[in-house]
Amino acid sequence: MSSATRQRGPANNAFDPDTLANLPAQDRDLIHRRQELLGPAYRLFYQRPLHFVRGRGTRLWDVAGEEYLDAYNNVVPVGHTHPRVVEAVYEQMQTLNTNTRYLNENILNYAEDLLGTFSGPVAARHAMFTCTGSDANDLALRIAKYRTGQEGVIVTSWAYHGNTRQLTGVSPSLGDASPLAPWCRRVPTPDSYRLDPAELPQRFANWVEEQIEHLNRHGHGVAALLLDTSFSSDGLFVDTDVLAPAVERVREAGGLFIADEVQPGFGRLGSHLWGHQRHGLDPDIVSMGKPMGNGFPVAGIAVKRDVVADFGHDIRYFNTFGGNTVAMAAAQATLDVIRDEGLMANAESTGAVIRNGLLELQKRHPRIGHVRGAGLYFSVEFVTDLDEKIPDKANATAVVNAMAERRVLISQTGRAGNALKIRPPLVFDSADADRLLTELSAVLDGLDA
Amino acid sequence: MSSATRQRGPANNAFDPDTLANLPAQDRDLIHRRQELLGPAYRLFYQRPLHFVRGRGTRLWDVAGEEYLDAYNNVVPVGHTHPRVVEAVYEQMQTLNTNTRYLNENILNYAEDLLGTFSGPVAARHAMFTCTGSDANDLALRIAKYRTGQEGVIVTSWAYHGNTRQLTGVSPSLGDASPLAPWCRRVPTPDSYRLDPAELPQRFANWVEEQIEHLNRHGHGVAALLLDTSFSSDGLFVDTDVLAPAVERVREAGGLFIADEVQPGFGRLGSHLWGHQRHGLDPDIVSMGKPMGNGFPVAGIAVKRDVVADFGHDIRYFNTFGGNTVAMAAAQATLDVIRDEGLMANAESTGAVIRNGLLELQKRHPRIGHVRGAGLYFSVEFVTDLDEKIPDKANATAVVNAMAERRVLISQTGRAGNALKIRPPLVFDSADADRLLTELSAVLDGLDA
Repeated sequence: MSSATRQRGPANNAFDPDTLANLPAQDRDLIHRRQELLGPAYRLFYQRPLHFVRGRGTRLWDVAGEEYLDAYNNVVPVGHTHPRVVEAVYEQMQTLNTNTRYLNENILNYAEDLLGTFSGPVAARHAMFTCTGSDANDLALRIAKYRTGQEGVIVTSWAYHGNTRQLTGVSPSLGDASPLAPWCRRVPTPDSYRLDPAELPQRFANWVEEQIEHLNRHGHGVAALLLDTSFSSDGLFVDTDVLAPAVERVREAGGLFIADEVQPGFGRLGSHLWGHQRHGLDPDIVSMGKPMGNGFPVAGIAVKRDVVADFGHDIRYFNTFGGNTVAMAAAQATLDVIRDEGLMANAESTGAVIRNGLLELQKRHPRIGHVRGAGLYFSVEFVTDLDEKIPDKANATAVVNAMAERRVLISQTGRAGNALKIRPPLVFDSADADRLLTELSAVLDGLDA
Repeated sequence: MSSATRQRGPANNAFDPDTLANLPAQDRDLIHRRQELLGPAYRLFYQRPLHFVRGRGTRLWDVAGEEYLDAYNNVVPVGHTHPRVVEAVYEQMQTLNTNTRYLNENILNYAEDLLGTFSGPVAARHAMFTCTGSDANDLALRIAKYRTGQEGVIVTSWAYHGNTRQLTGVSPSLGDASPLAPWCRRVPTPDSYRLDPAELPQRFANWVEEQIEHLNRHGHGVAALLLDTSFSSDGLFVDTDVLAPAVERVREAGGLFIADEVQPGFGRLGSHLWGHQRHGLDPDIVSMGKPMGNGFPVAGIAVKRDVVADFGHDIRYFNTFGGNTVAMAAAQATLDVIRDEGLMANAESTGAVIRNGLLELQKRHPRIGHVRGAGLYFSVEFVTDLDEKIPDKANATAVVNAMAERRVLISQTGRAGNALKIRPPLVFDSADADRLLTELSAVLDGLDA
């Protein structure tokens, strides 16, 4: 039995340990040491795992000195080792690192700034801080369940919302070996490639309605509809104005709407700072994470005042590192740079260049079934047949790995793993876009050969 | 109805918002702003909340320039703003901040170093990295449940193990409003003040045995006995060689032993780097957090190879920030300083000075029922009656707040909140110890007056 068989967790773009013998001795030794020390739960990217030692902006350098273009990393929206974030953390670490049980102004200034980015007045919401997007989603569900007195959570069929016990129970994309919670229900992905986009709002609402009935029938009730409004893990679908009817059904049933902005948030989609704003929604809770501190572990939620009132009074919340003075310095510097460098506008303009380039490539390559994206976030679906739209994982995998050999980093997404996932830092410029498209064009030509 | 009544979460040493009017205008404004922005779930320490702006070693400075001695903060074991940790993080942040899906040597070097601190060979365990102690405990329970195929978890009656949904279900100290999980069972605290210490190993084993039977009868089975072996939240009990018989019973029932080292770990107890080593135990999983990166968010588990083998193969684990290159730099620098500056030995020697001083104070003050501690970790219990050992929270609260007025920071612990909790950074020196004892003596004399 191969390791790939034994590894039931279906990670896209994962290195297969059975191919270890194909690698250079130096890499083999490091991977072996890694297996010994970190154990079997960790996965590496790419058929030839990469070993980076330096980063700057959109570039990474490996141990041999080779330079790579990073078109995948959303943890560093303002670019690798951005000096403003690095210096802000350094200054704060030299000064003070304490927690939220003491008074501090920087957490308040950042909270005010952050809450000002949502619909409605700053005073409509509270900010609460955690360390990871998982912590944030876990807290969001705790609050939703306490608020509604109900347990049920509805997610999409290939969602990922985090790695705590509660969240693995609502993360179908972790695969069959990771059980869903008894109170979790799934709805299909609003797949605008395979379904009529005009019908999606009503269809999605109907799917949600069915699951509400199911949850009620089983006595769980519905606490929340929990969605990444860009459906990152489901394959990335960035259509606008799809979700309002479904959210309305959930609220009629006494449930809340939680927008998981860990992936789409902080300007990646170009037109809006938050994904839910593209659907005209006003979530009860917004969770955020990955890009928030440009790599410093910081995350959090924005929650409507009335939603957290009872939870806050009855159950205190403390997170040793969440909202500490250094985390807030990192988050403030990151948000400042996103605004000062106009990175949302850059996501829109550079994103348009990439999108047009991808559409051009699609015309020449019939294996590309669908190109979609917004801002600097793209999915390119490979299919074996344009009419039947049968997912073609093999070619997506081949492209991702061939791109890595040409020193451009992208990855894969979707249940079938047949879609390229392109998600560069928001500082990606037109020269980066050209390089990405040029290399992708060459790789696609190679496929056809 | 007062806020204190509404605030059902029973936090020790929490500021009561109903007393806001007693504070200076500047503090009132900041607290009001905090309530508006962060909402009701956050708690402040002390009757007069503190506002720090600078830290160094064992000292903190408030916004008015007043200097405080920090005898409570275990998040900075090597002292506030220690230059080696600050510079290590700065250097790594300038260089590269990436995740565990790429190869990196620093995570391997740190893992090897860390695993070498446990009983047995490095190869007996794997290290896995998270961001917070909560993440670490949550992962530990996921692994334990997957390994054993059972659900039940046994904890002590006033334990705290973290803030995720799974962990609030095994954290009775969060109070009545926070429900325990159906598969959670509690055993009494091994209280060596109120019970015969010689009988504790057998009694504790019997209590655990009763709960194993209970869990089996309800069909949950026993996945784990989860203990902070210093019982920090239960009031701090640092007796040695108490727990082996109980652990044996759990293993006979097919369960695992998880040592939650978030509070006692990394040398605080002076004699050993890990609390479980004081009980001669070899845990199946060790979780660790708070002091690990001297304030940088980093945490993790050390797990026996066979325990995580199936989980690792079947369910991948990824944590965006956990084990990133900067977190590993912070953790490595912190561990290096603990060793290079001999901080475990300092915890033992400075701790002995404090312990002797506390015992002297006990002789003069009949309100002190019990002094206990190891290394730089102490509990001082106040009682209304030395024979009946009735907890006296009022005097403990008075002492903690009077100490803060004298600019020495300590806090409270235990279900009754009647015990001082003294837990200084491990760089606490003899002058710091003198200052702590001198101020405590003066405060106690004031109580008696």
